[in-house]
Amino acid sequence: MKDNKYDDPAFFAQYSQMERSTQGLAGAGEWYALRRMLPDLAGNRVLDLGCGFGWHCRYAAEQGAARVVGTDISEKMLARAREMTNDPRIEYRRVAVEDIDDPDGAYDVVLSSLVFHYVAAFDETCRAVYRLLSSGGDFVFSVEHPIFTAQGAQAWVLDADGKPLYWPVDRYFDEGMREANFLGETVTKYHRTLTGYLQALLSAGFTLTAFTEPEPDPALMARHPEYADELRRPMFALFAARKP
Amino acid sequence: MKDNKYDDPAFFAQYSQMERSTQGLAGAGEWYALRRMLPDLAGNRVLDLGCGFGWHCRYAAEQGAARVVGTDISEKMLARAREMTNDPRIEYRRVAVEDIDDPDGAYDVVLSSLVFHYVAAFDETCRAVYRLLSSGGDFVFSVEHPIFTAQGAQAWVLDADGKPLYWPVDRYFDEGMREANFLGETVTKYHRTLTGYLQALLSAGFTLTAFTEPEPDPALMARHPEYADELRRPMFALFAARKP
Repeated sequence: MKDNKYDDPAFFAQYSQMERSTQGLAGAGEWYALRRMLPDLAGNRVLDLGCGFGWHCRYAAEQGAARVVGTDISEKMLARAREMTNDPRIEYRRVAVEDIDDPDGAYDVVLSSLVFHYVAAFDETCRAVYRLLSSGGDFVFSVEHPIFTAQGAQAWVLDADGKPLYWPVDRYFDEGMREANFLGETVTKYHRTLTGYLQALLSAGFTLTAFTEPEPDPALMARHPEYADELRRPMFALFAARKP
Repeated sequence: MKDNKYDDPAFFAQYSQMERSTQGLAGAGEWYALRRMLPDLAGNRVLDLGCGFGWHCRYAAEQGAARVVGTDISEKMLARAREMTNDPRIEYRRVAVEDIDDPDGAYDVVLSSLVFHYVAAFDETCRAVYRLLSSGGDFVFSVEHPIFTAQGAQAWVLDADGKPLYWPVDRYFDEGMREANFLGETVTKYHRTLTGYLQALLSAGFTLTAFTEPEPDPALMARHPEYADELRRPMFALFAARKP
C-alpha cells in the first residue's frame, strides 16, 4: 500500500501549498506532456489511481468522460477532492490499487500521476490494471524517473557556492525502498529501474505506445528561471501502454 | 556515419587487447543478456550492423542462420573478421547503415552491439532497419545507456582516495555529440535520451518486445571483483523490437 504521509497534518499542509496543489494541473510541470499521451476521454470510463485532490478526475469529466473513479488512500486528500467536485459522473473511493474490486474490463482508460514510486510491487499493479481495462484500453502514468530515485537523497551535488554540479546516480540496480526528503519530511519511496517499469508492463501483456521524459513545461520555465537545472537530468518518466 | 576511430592504428591496437576482442562474446559483459533477447536464429537471414571482428556473425552461423551479413565501416575490423571466418554463409561488407541497399524485407533478424551511440541520426537507422526486416522480424541491439553518455566524460566522481563516490549525470536533455575518453583516445559519441531511443523505435513502426539494463555477467563479476561498481549505475541499455 502507498505510504500515507499525506494524512500527516504537517506534511499535508506543506503539500497543499505546492503550485501543483494551489493551481492544479497548470502548476504541474509534467502535465502538458502527460496530457498529450492520453487518448480521447470522451464517452470513456476512466480510473485515476492515487487521485489526490482530484484534478485529473475533473479534467477527465471536462473532456466528456462517461464515468470517472478516483481512488486514493489518504482521507484528507479525498475530503479535499470531494469539496472541489460537483459532478455526478465522478466518484472518489478510499481504496488501495490492489484492492479495487471492479469487474474485469470495467474501465477504458486508467491513469495515474506520480503515485507508483510509492508502490512496492509494481508488477502486481500492472496485472491489476490489465484486468480492469477493456480490450484496447489505455494505461497512462507518470513516475519519478529512476535517475531521480536511484541514490535516494534526491538532491544535486553542489559546488562551494551552492550551485548544482551534477546529479548523483548510485545504487541503480538496488531496487527497493528509499527514504527521501520531500517538503521537509522523510518520505518512503520505491526505486525501480527502467527495466523494472518496462518489463512489468510487457510481462502483464501491455504494448508500449509512448514513453516520454518530459522537460519542464515551457510556460512554467518562463515563470521560474531556476527550473533551467531541470534540463540537466530527468525528474519524471511518462509511460503509455495499451491492452491489445 | 559511424566515427571510424577503429582504423586509427593506436586505437585499433588498444581495442584489440580488450577482453571482448581477445575472448569474443565470452569477454563482453552484456552478451549473456543480449543473447537471451535474440529470437531463434536457425534458418533465418541475419544482418549485424557494426559487426567489428564478426563475433556475432559467427555466433549466428553457429546457431544455424541461413545467411549472415555483417557490415562495418572499419577496414581493419573487417579484415580481422574475414581472417577469423571460414563459413560461406557469412558475408562481410564495408558499408554504413544508411547505405545498405538490400531489398525490402531481406532480413529476418537485425542485430547490433554497441554501435548506435556512434550514430547521429538514430531515427533514420530505425526506418532503414524497418525497411530491411521481413514482417514479424526482430531488431535487437545494445547501446551505451543514456545515464552513461549524458555528461560526456564517462567517469565516476572520485573521493580523495580515488574511490567512486557516484556517477555524475548532467546535460541529459542536450542530445548530440560528446567527446569521451575510451582507451586513452578521444572518441566522438552521440548521447540521446531514453525517450529518443524508444520513440525512434515506436515512430518507425516497431513494437517493443523487451528492454534490459543488464547487470554485468555474473561469470565476469567473479573474475573481476572491481566490476562491483557496475551495479551502481547502468552502462548499457538493450532493446528488442518487432516489425508487426
